[in-house]
Amino acid sequence: MIDKKVRPILEMNAFDKQCPQSDSVARRIANSGASSVLFYRDPIEMVSAEGAWMTDIKGIRYLDFYNNVPCIGHSHPAVLEAVSKQIGTLNTNTRYIVPIVDEYLEALKSTFPEALNLTNIVLTCSGSEANDLAMRLACKHTQGTGFIVTESAYHGNTAFVTQVSPSALKNTKLPDHVIAIPPPAKKYYGEEVGQGFANQVKAAIDQLNQRGIKVAALLLDSVFSSDGVFTEPYGLLNKAIEVVHQAGGLYIADEVQPGFARTGTAFWGFQNHHVSPDIVTLGKPMGNGFPMAGVVTKSEYLDAFCADVGYFNTFGGNPVAAAAGLAVLKEIQVNNLQENARVLGDYLKQQLQAIAEVSPHISEVRGSGLFIGIDVCDSSSAQKPDAEFTVKMIDRLRDENILIGAAGPDGSTLKLRPTLCLTKEEADYFIQAFAKVLGL
Amino acid sequence: MIDKKVRPILEMNAFDKQCPQSDSVARRIANSGASSVLFYRDPIEMVSAEGAWMTDIKGIRYLDFYNNVPCIGHSHPAVLEAVSKQIGTLNTNTRYIVPIVDEYLEALKSTFPEALNLTNIVLTCSGSEANDLAMRLACKHTQGTGFIVTESAYHGNTAFVTQVSPSALKNTKLPDHVIAIPPPAKKYYGEEVGQGFANQVKAAIDQLNQRGIKVAALLLDSVFSSDGVFTEPYGLLNKAIEVVHQAGGLYIADEVQPGFARTGTAFWGFQNHHVSPDIVTLGKPMGNGFPMAGVVTKSEYLDAFCADVGYFNTFGGNPVAAAAGLAVLKEIQVNNLQENARVLGDYLKQQLQAIAEVSPHISEVRGSGLFIGIDVCDSSSAQKPDAEFTVKMIDRLRDENILIGAAGPDGSTLKLRPTLCLTKEEADYFIQAFAKVLGL
Repeated sequence: MIDKKVRPILEMNAFDKQCPQSDSVARRIANSGASSVLFYRDPIEMVSAEGAWMTDIKGIRYLDFYNNVPCIGHSHPAVLEAVSKQIGTLNTNTRYIVPIVDEYLEALKSTFPEALNLTNIVLTCSGSEANDLAMRLACKHTQGTGFIVTESAYHGNTAFVTQVSPSALKNTKLPDHVIAIPPPAKKYYGEEVGQGFANQVKAAIDQLNQRGIKVAALLLDSVFSSDGVFTEPYGLLNKAIEVVHQAGGLYIADEVQPGFARTGTAFWGFQNHHVSPDIVTLGKPMGNGFPMAGVVTKSEYLDAFCADVGYFNTFGGNPVAAAAGLAVLKEIQVNNLQENARVLGDYLKQQLQAIAEVSPHISEVRGSGLFIGIDVCDSSSAQKPDAEFTVKMIDRLRDENILIGAAGPDGSTLKLRPTLCLTKEEADYFIQAFAKVLGL
Repeated sequence: MIDKKVRPILEMNAFDKQCPQSDSVARRIANSGASSVLFYRDPIEMVSAEGAWMTDIKGIRYLDFYNNVPCIGHSHPAVLEAVSKQIGTLNTNTRYIVPIVDEYLEALKSTFPEALNLTNIVLTCSGSEANDLAMRLACKHTQGTGFIVTESAYHGNTAFVTQVSPSALKNTKLPDHVIAIPPPAKKYYGEEVGQGFANQVKAAIDQLNQRGIKVAALLLDSVFSSDGVFTEPYGLLNKAIEVVHQAGGLYIADEVQPGFARTGTAFWGFQNHHVSPDIVTLGKPMGNGFPMAGVVTKSEYLDAFCADVGYFNTFGGNPVAAAAGLAVLKEIQVNNLQENARVLGDYLKQQLQAIAEVSPHISEVRGSGLFIGIDVCDSSSAQKPDAEFTVKMIDRLRDENILIGAAGPDGSTLKLRPTLCLTKEEADYFIQAFAKVLGL
């Protein structure tokens, strides 16, 4: 299944440029051209958002089950206050000492188990920049250039990171130094998922070696979100990581999507698997929408890398980002949002599984906390994924005032990522709408 | 002079980790390790900033002649207001239409001459991301992979962009697909700078061809800031760009440093040379410190690129960035900051040239508007650049409450980039301090 063609993730539920265009859509396309990546055939013009809800120009309110960036809730007053205070006081770069930056770095470090020895953090602007740097740290340390990723993985948008993001590629093949393998799921490996996945990693390392390439890292999104959300059973990654370590490669945990308490059972997705990453990358929800991301690493990797190449990030580690980041960490802690994610995630899964039992369109419900994947199938067979019907469901859910997206190699998995401050009432609102669009 | 060793720009005036460390410096190094890039042997702990001034923890106020990011002034109320209003209302991504984003894109487009046909903008988080994408657009369009840059150029920090940033490299050589040539200055090419530079570009294209590599682009910072600031004579780039176009390559204008009115005589640095870039990249001052950047391009390049690769930037083009960007554009326009940059830049240059005539330590003063380079030499000869004395001057100017940095292949050019809202009094404050540290 290596190098299998996957459906580009940006094409899922995207606006079709051949469709009739409203004035505002035509305006966007005139401004951004082919890089316009609007959702829905009839894209939504948004004007405001609060908590779990977004409001469009017609006054329609949508329950946001798509956007994982505003993790503590849209337009959150704690972030507004922190950003306003800091941006009116001092916004500069890491060439000077600014206490709030170190306060943030220390608060962030304290979320990682000390035993991991991940003592250094480099703050960047985006998850793409974080993965770009993490991959280079791995190359320098291992003197290898090979990467192993999953077959629908998305790790970012720089030239280097796009090479390890099969789901971003349309007409281009993976380069020789990248091997894509199926994500660790029973449907690909049978009951012994962990062993099967480890065997596939081993085969990938051998294939790289045959090409004369040494493995630098196994780079994994801890919840395999673009692959369709595979989180359980916990502990299934151990063997694969052992294999890559034996070959001299590193394990990079991409926490851009799973991180910051979303899985409910842990603050970081990799913790669910009881594994020890060599490097961790962070992003999306880190500043609740303020552009910021980071690389958490052992100091030795950074020492070796920085001896060769100077790394400086003008906006990375600015005090406004630190203020936003601190507000997010505090809000998660004070309001126990990790526990909320666990409780409401379990509730949602339970309700969705009950729906799956009676609907011929839903073959499986998976996930951890508020990161849930729902496989949509043809009503004739649970074995036939139905990407077309998935888009129909996304459209019908929009008509029910719910925002949701798709993932997986063919786009037939609905991906749920509501804000971590979701309420039981909002979860019920979603469930009712979901049952309705399935005709239940 | 191709592949000549240049002094890594991050090492100029950097904190020496072997020096005695204050608690706050030790704390930063414990948090950021080898990626700590603090300025000064005894780094400054900053607490606030306003207008052209920054204040440290001891209450010492520094006139900021270093930081070009806060272009309309530190902690500017217009940016505070715009960011606060928008971040409390809606902060989302470009998958939805948000009117303020298109308002910004249109305002930004209106700063480019229509004849250039640069109709599409992709907003990113950093200048690095912008150059990374611009380079890929050039590769796709030309089917080439070769790049020509100047020998102390810095274009960003991603893996791909670091390859074209000689001044970021310490122990690594430029890859085969990158040729570095001296910047267009009399000291390298004699009186016929434009022709000499064009000849060097031609030689670089030939050298790439000999390596079996087709040129993708000539990538130039329009003021050659890292090379030591070379802005005049205006018009000197025409011939070089003709040469690269004849070879089927593109010309990418990197406006991350010169853009947004800093040169005084034009809004964009390339306009001073009356040339037509195929792609323009923007960054640093764009949001006065809010992390944002962009690629301005002909739509055909984006069409071709996006047919192969999906490009989406989670934080790029968020409405908060658009609000900050609009505030910056408006402030520059309403307060005529371009004209202020021209007038005060001319004044500073005139005063500095008068100092150069009497000081044996200053061999040349160059620049446009508020982007000025001052060559520091050994007092025995104007032909002997003196990097060591340059660092001494930076330290002495700090003692006079002025922040300033260095550039150039050996770090012997002082680089002046004060805020565009600088006053005559502040310019005089700088001149007096500058004369004083030279013993005048």
